[in-house]
Amino acid sequence: MNRPPLRLAVLLSGSGTTLQNLIDHITAGTLSASIILVISSRPDAYGLVRAKRHGLETISVPRKASHDTRAYSDEINRTLDCFAPDLIALAGFLHVFHYAPHYWGRVMNIHPSLIPAFCGKGFYGPRVHQAALAYGVKVSGCTVHFVDEEYDHGPIILQRVVPVLGHDTPASLAERVAIEERQAYPEAIQLFAEGRLQIQGRWVKILETTPSLISPPGGELGKER
Amino acid sequence: MNRPPLRLAVLLSGSGTTLQNLIDHITAGTLSASIILVISSRPDAYGLVRAKRHGLETISVPRKASHDTRAYSDEINRTLDCFAPDLIALAGFLHVFHYAPHYWGRVMNIHPSLIPAFCGKGFYGPRVHQAALAYGVKVSGCTVHFVDEEYDHGPIILQRVVPVLGHDTPASLAERVAIEERQAYPEAIQLFAEGRLQIQGRWVKILETTPSLISPPGGELGKER
Repeated sequence: MNRPPLRLAVLLSGSGTTLQNLIDHITAGTLSASIILVISSRPDAYGLVRAKRHGLETISVPRKASHDTRAYSDEINRTLDCFAPDLIALAGFLHVFHYAPHYWGRVMNIHPSLIPAFCGKGFYGPRVHQAALAYGVKVSGCTVHFVDEEYDHGPIILQRVVPVLGHDTPASLAERVAIEERQAYPEAIQLFAEGRLQIQGRWVKILETTPSLISPPGGELGKER
Repeated sequence: MNRPPLRLAVLLSGSGTTLQNLIDHITAGTLSASIILVISSRPDAYGLVRAKRHGLETISVPRKASHDTRAYSDEINRTLDCFAPDLIALAGFLHVFHYAPHYWGRVMNIHPSLIPAFCGKGFYGPRVHQAALAYGVKVSGCTVHFVDEEYDHGPIILQRVVPVLGHDTPASLAERVAIEERQAYPEAIQLFAEGRLQIQGRWVKILETTPSLISPPGGELGKER
């Protein structure tokens, strides 16, 4: 009756702190996933070093080698298809990529604000927290969402909230939000692994219990996704 | 050493539930304010009935009697000036009004979302919660802010958060947010009454303790506002 661990592909461009967090949760037994592939858009990303250190399969798909987004997307999709992941987790992946239609509802990302605030094109890294502080909000947080064709726009899975304090800098706010990110992303992936996420338009329903692995007559396992 | 109660003017257009909440907090001793004036933009607003029932001074300043926003603003400002309020609380006031410059930092409003999400022109009443549900956010809340020249845009004083649930309707979400609104608005006004709010650009600093009523040599009471 046990599900096999989720086959997870991780896409990154940088130091791989999000990857490391997922590895840590898998090691701790709080995330039932197996990272089958790490793709980096940069051959020199430190995230690749971390991945190899943990014995993970790594592939570098340099953005520079493709002359446009379409060609790059094709390259990424071809690579993914070879490994047949159940879920693709963006983990600090800095380039636009259009996933193949069969990955709809199976690509996740995390953003360090309460979407729809402080998100979209140009809002990444410290700029998100600079914008939140410049606006003067009293709460911020993070958002895990499914990826669609717009920046930071797909159906929202989880949001976690932090206070913004009077002495905050972008760095101190980023650190407070990062603590929530480290909980939220593995939690969302685990819910997916348990088959407990259903996309209903823009609403992501979180099922109270894991659906049975026994398919109903005529039914198809995981069809509700 | 006791401060005199805050002289509060309340502006409304409708049933006055926000006014009633402020009256209840004053009666309960959790808000050190005296409502010196209730202005309604509609002569038949039920908020006026509530106000009179509690022996409050009421004035109807019908929007229809002024032919443009400028004229209406002048009318409201003249009325306010006669009563010299310390603070003006918008409480379901549905018309645009430009307060006189000497009221800068002394006009508050509350909005039933986490600004900057689901706010601005067209976002009022049930529409705010409809928009939040249509977007699929997992958290919403309310925001108390100082009023500036743009809709729902001035410096933010307090924000309180609620979860959005799978079975929510605009009405059920509105009710959950309203519970927080009933706490947040009197809390913000009380902080103002205690002299604990300082506007620093778009950031509203909340002082830990009430400033002394004894002015420093050469100082002016409340000058920091």
